Amino acid sequence: MQLGFALLEAGTVSIKSTMATLFKNIFDLFIGTISFLVVGYAFAYGDVGARFIGGRGFFLNGVSQCDYPYFFFQAAFAAACTTIVSGAVAGRASSAMYIVYSVVITGLVYPVVVHWVWADNAWLSQGTHGRGFHDFAGSGVVHVTGGTIALVGAWLLKPRLSRLDVDGDFRPVQPHSVPLIIMGGFILVVGFLAFNAGSLITLQSADAVSRLGMIAVNTIVAASAGGLSATAADFVAHGEMSLLMATNGMLAGCVAICAGADVVMPWASLLIGGIAGVVCLAWCYILPKLGIDDAVSAAPVHAGAGIWGLIAVAFFSRETGLFYIDIKDSLESFGWQILGTIVIVVWATVMALVMFIPLRMLGVLRVTREYEERGLDISYYGGRAYNVEAETSVPLKGTTIKQALQEDFFNSEA
Amino acid sequence: MQLGFALLEAGTVSIKSTMATLFKNIFDLFIGTISFLVVGYAFAYGDVGARFIGGRGFFLNGVSQCDYPYFFFQAAFAAACTTIVSGAVAGRASSAMYIVYSVVITGLVYPVVVHWVWADNAWLSQGTHGRGFHDFAGSGVVHVTGGTIALVGAWLLKPRLSRLDVDGDFRPVQPHSVPLIIMGGFILVVGFLAFNAGSLITLQSADAVSRLGMIAVNTIVAASAGGLSATAADFVAHGEMSLLMATNGMLAGCVAICAGADVVMPWASLLIGGIAGVVCLAWCYILPKLGIDDAVSAAPVHAGAGIWGLIAVAFFSRETGLFYIDIKDSLESFGWQILGTIVIVVWATVMALVMFIPLRMLGVLRVTREYEERGLDISYYGGRAYNVEAETSVPLKGTTIKQALQEDFFNSEA
Amino acid sequence: MQLGFALLEAGTVSIKSTMATLFKNIFDLFIGTISFLVVGYAFAYGDVGARFIGGRGFFLNGVSQCDYPYFFFQAAFAAACTTIVSGAVAGRASSAMYIVYSVVITGLVYPVVVHWVWADNAWLSQGTHGRGFHDFAGSGVVHVTGGTIALVGAWLLKPRLSRLDVDGDFRPVQPHSVPLIIMGGFILVVGFLAFNAGSLITLQSADAVSRLGMIAVNTIVAASAGGLSATAADFVAHGEMSLLMATNGMLAGCVAICAGADVVMPWASLLIGGIAGVVCLAWCYILPKLGIDDAVSAAPVHAGAGIWGLIAVAFFSRETGLFYIDIKDSLESFGWQILGTIVIVVWATVMALVMFIPLRMLGVLRVTREYEERGLDISYYGGRAYNVEAETSVPLKGTTIKQALQEDFFNSEA
Repeated sequence: MQLGFALLEAGTVSIKSTMATLFKNIFDLFIGTISFLVVGYAFAYGDVGARFIGGRGFFLNGVSQCDYPYFFFQAAFAAACTTIVSGAVAGRASSAMYIVYSVVITGLVYPVVVHWVWADNAWLSQGTHGRGFHDFAGSGVVHVTGGTIALVGAWLLKPRLSRLDVDGDFRPVQPHSVPLIIMGGFILVVGFLAFNAGSLITLQSADAVSRLGMIAVNTIVAASAGGLSATAADFVAHGEMSLLMATNGMLAGCVAICAGADVVMPWASLLIGGIAGVVCLAWCYILPKLGIDDAVSAAPVHAGAGIWGLIAVAFFSRETGLFYIDIKDSLESFGWQILGTIVIVVWATVMALVMFIPLRMLGVLRVTREYEERGLDISYYGGRAYNVEAETSVPLKGTTIKQALQEDFFNSEA
Repeated sequence: MQLGFALLEAGTVSIKSTMATLFKNIFDLFIGTISFLVVGYAFAYGDVGARFIGGRGFFLNGVSQCDYPYFFFQAAFAAACTTIVSGAVAGRASSAMYIVYSVVITGLVYPVVVHWVWADNAWLSQGTHGRGFHDFAGSGVVHVTGGTIALVGAWLLKPRLSRLDVDGDFRPVQPHSVPLIIMGGFILVVGFLAFNAGSLITLQSADAVSRLGMIAVNTIVAASAGGLSATAADFVAHGEMSLLMATNGMLAGCVAICAGADVVMPWASLLIGGIAGVVCLAWCYILPKLGIDDAVSAAPVHAGAGIWGLIAVAFFSRETGLFYIDIKDSLESFGWQILGTIVIVVWATVMALVMFIPLRMLGVLRVTREYEERGLDISYYGGRAYNVEAETSVPLKGTTIKQALQEDFFNSEA
Repeated sequence: MQLGFALLEAGTVSIKSTMATLFKNIFDLFIGTISFLVVGYAFAYGDVGARFIGGRGFFLNGVSQCDYPYFFFQAAFAAACTTIVSGAVAGRASSAMYIVYSVVITGLVYPVVVHWVWADNAWLSQGTHGRGFHDFAGSGVVHVTGGTIALVGAWLLKPRLSRLDVDGDFRPVQPHSVPLIIMGGFILVVGFLAFNAGSLITLQSADAVSRLGMIAVNTIVAASAGGLSATAADFVAHGEMSLLMATNGMLAGCVAICAGADVVMPWASLLIGGIAGVVCLAWCYILPKLGIDDAVSAAPVHAGAGIWGLIAVAFFSRETGLFYIDIKDSLESFGWQILGTIVIVVWATVMALVMFIPLRMLGVLRVTREYEERGLDISYYGGRAYNVEAETSVPLKGTTIKQALQEDFFNSEA
């Protein structure tokens, strides 16, 4: 999953910040795992009675070995949530900003949402009359959380210099490597399949296995529908087909189906994914109008499609949806879906502002103009992502001993 | 699997049609999944009694949830079958051709073959005296079907302009990125392992699990033998080793072992894979002599090695093979393998002609000369696959307000 | 796993030997599988009573089908062990050297170590009083074996010409594609997860499943700690962050945890991985001082971190570690860990010298100066790894028939 994000984002950004983008993605995994080990897991699942936040199991101390697969799985989710942000702010975010948000998201922001939605007896999923907020595999918990923080971050950072034309308006982005994007996108789809199937461990019930097939089918159908609809809508609007938009539409379909993959039928997945592709496209057009430069369309894909996915459950769920059960009960479910969505968006927005506004006031949210112009790779990472000139040997001169040594290399020339 | 094909093909083609090739591969998944959902699955598995084609379960309606994993698996196979074609016709096929064949193959051509070979009581696999056509994981159903259509398509399209030298003879191809090819090839081997192991779900019997190890071993042994033999034969013929040929040989080994992975011993896999590598190499030399430009050697790898794999079952199968049981019974099996192969080749050829000849008569099978010269990427996909110049910011002038806004970005410069 | 190594190494080396590096990695799989099939498996697991080497089951003859998954798994390990060497000697090793070591390692060197450590009643793992050498998933068997041979090979070969400056001192390496490195690194982490989890099949006991979660958690925690510590130490020493070092640190963490992934707690993994990252970094600085040019830091990552991982078991194992049980018993375990490590290092060193010294005396260990300067790709593999100029068609002239044929391609122009 992390690899998918890394490649997708690295392929999309300019070649001068490719290494910076890769670096942030690889570090999300390191920081996410360790931060989730140290405090995150305890906040999310420790002390199940607590309303707001857990508080036992730091360093996994006292956690039963049976819950270890759970930790592994959730640490990967936490890293994914962070990685969503790194894409949106690519090309100009400072290392300070990066370190702050990756530690805080994996250590606090994400675990708290998990506690509300996925812990035993969580207030959001518990709901009323057994009908509460339903988010099977993280449309809200992972994607709306990450996408919202990404949106706030990109907004506070303002656009990359290279996206502005001479009048300060937006220019189209040029991805530096389309093959990397496609690789990243496909790997992410495989990741979604694994995550969605893996989310069955939360059920811990006998029918988990029987749902596996349905979840896999719903995921791949939604992905396909999202890719097709985004491309078609893009073609209608612009007369050209864009691989970037096809990939984003596919991912939007995956994001949207996460919430209900366990409770909707394949025909519903077709609709959910198809609409997600269009929602994603719409967000992609609106953001630049608002002056927001989201370098990899993280907010459209994750926040946009994620919110749609949460709402879609209220319509298409075979257990609680408007199309299946009587209207009074389904409206109750509808209310919980809306409430949960709002709670997540508000929490993520507030935490993003708490993290980023002080950094901006201190003047360390963004790199300097000079460093941005040169590119983050040369400024911070000591080089370029590609070195395509073949290295040549230089003539060795002077020190006779070394030259002698040198000759000796090539026994076969003797 | 789809990712493997995408990378392999994109790496092999010229840089000017890289995006076009990626686009077609990603769309195969979208179209394949949806087309198989809407009609394909019903044609393949609905109404099991029917001789020619099934007819129940459109949109998976009425299909038991237990069969969903089956759908997931088969949709991936259908997409693979289509993708085989896209490689052969790369660089000059029109979008019209692409859309027609991808919809028709996944919706009709492939499902019908599945119905004949893999549905309960299928006439081909049923055979006589309990000995019928044996194609465990699709040497015939997937690879010969796809490879045959690829061959017919490449033949009808005629060669890419850039493959012809000044006299109209063939020039060698230059893959634009060898690392992409290797990535694609390796991912495909992993895909073959998964597909072949996954094909055990068709058995739905207790001994399925015990065969898992044997299938994995046979697959990896055949892949290794194919890669080695193709490289060795190539070296003998040309005095050079080619990574492209090593990769194709490896894949040819995988394709050939699909048919019998469940019924042959590892030493037989060594032979089957080794011969497949040489068969593939032979086809690679013959096709250009016939004036056929198969851009990624799809026909040699899939049709060539696939046909060999089907025949090999008649020799090496521990249950029905010439080397194991008495000759009269084994000849009966032999006959069914030959018959099945012929049936698939004829069906695929007829359907390919039915699809492509009308398009050619309408003059929309191939892109125009001008578009081909410029490359499909710029002509249709609005750009290039790589943008390796670092994007620079332009000096902002004029509108004072925007400039002020601009300055404000860099708090740290204050 | 093989793909991860291939990409990591190909990305790290100069663009002029990219294809050569890929070729060797892909061939490791071919040769490893077949060599392990023909003799390796028999040496490792046949005739369990034998002290030094097994001797039954050539070609898997007479091996129970239940042991096939075991073969599959071990063949992959054998190929990995070989691939470690190919990275270190990249850019100047001859094909003769490559063929010799890949056949000998997978056919003899590695199987013998497996026989000593992992066969039933192996003398090393058996040990005394039920406390013997503990190497769960190959820190020693795979990584120290491979890393030691890599070190000896790189030392005997002497440095690449392009690494030397005008005075014969070392210059820093420039990886040709950082994205390839990151891809390779991530795929390897996934590979380690699979290998470590897969190593549970050696236990063949009921509690295997319950340990799966712990092993996955330990692996990802050690990887993250290794990546973080290597980067932090590198930053302290140089003031710059290097993606290459982050990746190597991550892999060093994975290598080190292999030995004890089944018997240590997550907090211990944090320490083991963290120290492994620093150990790797230290080796990376020491090797050039010794005049050894290890092209991809194979020895630091595999031998360096592997040795540390073996020793760490003696401290952190919950069953036999110094921190858990009384000192007399734990010192016994400590002794076995040290003994096992020494045995493996000595065996690997001796075999490396036996393989490489005769080749060097024959003058065929290294390619000629001229071929190395031109690059292995052009010298041996008939081309370049990337062909980024779009191929153009040439004007067809002369033969009228061919021109007519040519025109006919473009029906749509009619």
